[in-house]
Amino acid sequence: MTMAKYETEILADEKVPTIRLVREFDAPPAQVFRAHVDPELYAQWVGPHSITTRITRWDARTGGEWAFASDRGGEEIAAFHGSFHEVRPDERIVWTFTYDGEPDNVALETLTLEELDGGRTRLRVLSVVADFATRDGMLASGMATGINEGYAKLDDLLAKEA
Amino acid sequence: MTMAKYETEILADEKVPTIRLVREFDAPPAQVFRAHVDPELYAQWVGPHSITTRITRWDARTGGEWAFASDRGGEEIAAFHGSFHEVRPDERIVWTFTYDGEPDNVALETLTLEELDGGRTRLRVLSVVADFATRDGMLASGMATGINEGYAKLDDLLAKEA
Repeated sequence: MTMAKYETEILADEKVPTIRLVREFDAPPAQVFRAHVDPELYAQWVGPHSITTRITRWDARTGGEWAFASDRGGEEIAAFHGSFHEVRPDERIVWTFTYDGEPDNVALETLTLEELDGGRTRLRVLSVVADFATRDGMLASGMATGINEGYAKLDDLLAKEA
Repeated sequence: MTMAKYETEILADEKVPTIRLVREFDAPPAQVFRAHVDPELYAQWVGPHSITTRITRWDARTGGEWAFASDRGGEEIAAFHGSFHEVRPDERIVWTFTYDGEPDNVALETLTLEELDGGRTRLRVLSVVADFATRDGMLASGMATGINEGYAKLDDLLAKEA
């Protein structure tokens, strides 16, 4: 496990209950997009090193749905589900996100892909929830570890595919 | 056109970019729920008096999708679409909502149905967006007219069915 070249900025807005992530990748938008909508690719990188991801539903189109489980040592330790509100190829994905253990908490997440010089991409992820307590609970849940370890795996996957 | 018996409270939170509606109905939760998920019923009441609603996609289940158009004088004047993040019978509906004319604006809406004495229901609708400008734009768009006229039509529909 090597240090990732890029850091993920994780910003909690003071005025609104949102979390903003910003992360660059050494691959063009189309490739980063595909790693988010192809279930076999997505399962390879999402989440922390300690878990493996098992996709249980996946229909990555505007109006489609998704669900996956996180396994550790062969046991399911968490599951998540949501809808694809919009899948705009190579540009934008809007999905809802719920941890099945807290079914009344729903985040609305917007991913946007910006093309940078040198065949690179800036990914922005905006997560919106209804109140600050839910937002702060997400931040306190150890999400940074999962995000940083997941994006480091995504770096490796993008490099391998290139 | 008669005055509605109940008023709709429309609350714009100062601290978060949300809109909260609260409205009572003279019908039990199961009936109010059905009027939101049955496309033939929904089309009969949603929106202001000046338009008719034409459902174009409708799959009212957790993970499903929806879309409808608003017609005036036989011409389409607006269209909307989204996903059903959750459909929990007689209790709760979570959907995403986009006006097709502003495809980058997405609201996450949670409807909850609370049973009241006398076979009545209190409906709460929480709309969450990412920033105050979007929220204030929704409030300025004349949404109150559509909501109040729509819920008055829903009152009539519920009374007719009872």
